[in-house]
Amino acid sequence: MTDTQDEQKQAVGEAAAALVEDGMVVGLGTGSTARFLVDALGRRVGDGLRIVAIPTSERTAEQARSVGIPLVGLDTHPRIDLTVDGADEIELGSLALIKGLGGALLREKIVAAASKRLVIIADESKLVKRLGRRTPVPVEVVRFGWQATAAHLRELGAEPILRHAGGDVPFITDGGNLILDCKFDGIADPRASELAIDDVVGVVESGLFINRAECALVAGIGGVRRIVREG
Amino acid sequence: MTDTQDEQKQAVGEAAAALVEDGMVVGLGTGSTARFLVDALGRRVGDGLRIVAIPTSERTAEQARSVGIPLVGLDTHPRIDLTVDGADEIELGSLALIKGLGGALLREKIVAAASKRLVIIADESKLVKRLGRRTPVPVEVVRFGWQATAAHLRELGAEPILRHAGGDVPFITDGGNLILDCKFDGIADPRASELAIDDVVGVVESGLFINRAECALVAGIGGVRRIVREG
Repeated sequence: MTDTQDEQKQAVGEAAAALVEDGMVVGLGTGSTARFLVDALGRRVGDGLRIVAIPTSERTAEQARSVGIPLVGLDTHPRIDLTVDGADEIELGSLALIKGLGGALLREKIVAAASKRLVIIADESKLVKRLGRRTPVPVEVVRFGWQATAAHLRELGAEPILRHAGGDVPFITDGGNLILDCKFDGIADPRASELAIDDVVGVVESGLFINRAECALVAGIGGVRRIVREG
Repeated sequence: MTDTQDEQKQAVGEAAAALVEDGMVVGLGTGSTARFLVDALGRRVGDGLRIVAIPTSERTAEQARSVGIPLVGLDTHPRIDLTVDGADEIELGSLALIKGLGGALLREKIVAAASKRLVIIADESKLVKRLGRRTPVPVEVVRFGWQATAAHLRELGAEPILRHAGGDVPFITDGGNLILDCKFDGIADPRASELAIDDVVGVVESGLFINRAECALVAGIGGVRRIVREG
């Protein structure tokens, strides 16, 4: 990570924080770019902005608490006004996303599904013409029978690899599940792939986010630009 | 439960146990009818039948151990020759099923998906012309944001009710999730409903089992009859 990358992430984090308005219920993403958003939002709360927020991970919850952002749950606030979150790949035009390399895809997707608006923050290295050529699709699967689930995902053309936390220890999600990182040779129809992966028994959720992002704030050398979903 | 019902369940349990052959990997269902199967299979193992079995719940695992059936896991045995399991509703013709009132739907579905053959055992009160008029569809959902997930299921026409273990304590599945019992006013297209439910973010798996059962062994006053899937 160079300083320049950190500066770019800070710029989009602040641009996204500026979208938040008084009285909003805000969904807070997880990841290296989202960290800058949470910091920027914490400063605005310190300046008097009144919001409540729903974090997508224990990690983000901890950071939000430390900067003074009041947290609530989906039980009391089932509708979120605006969620800001990162992404690992963003398809130009459709704004279809691959998310979940950070391991929080399930909560991120539940929060996104409960949100009126989803704004993605990223640097321009995340923009792609077609999803899945470079980045595997993280798929959260239940522990019971995960090898059989992996075999079914292989039948869809994926190369699933069990994610590890280090050494031989499998990575365990906040929900107590496993992650299979599924490498595809490019994804021609992201919505069809999302449905097919979800249909595999044992799959909890995939990191494909389709028709969910309203726009992306993308940082490059020239500054932050806003990319709106087409069609 | 009358003696007659128990006698009927015993009759189908024994008929199903008779389908098991030497050397098979057998999936063992969960529920009141499956208990008779496990007992009958334990007797055959005592008589020299050599099989290994994969249970669909901790409860079934315990019973199987107590009657001497050797247990294995999907990690070492990802392909199952024959699974015998109960069902809560069986649609005549298609053999589409509602399962999971017993709370083990996720493991039951993972085992069914790994099985070459799935045989359903039931009494004839479980046969219906259309699924979902009488029995709710159990849907296993993650705990995080389950209220938002319930709201999305309501948009599909369901009336979701959180299952309780007793009093105010929610029922927790073997996988650590919750169950929403989703009452529909009959299910016209079970496969379409299965896909739509699976597409809801936060849903782990539904109790709709479509195109999975090869046949059903159904006990009535006249004895056990075998119903094969049509089409």
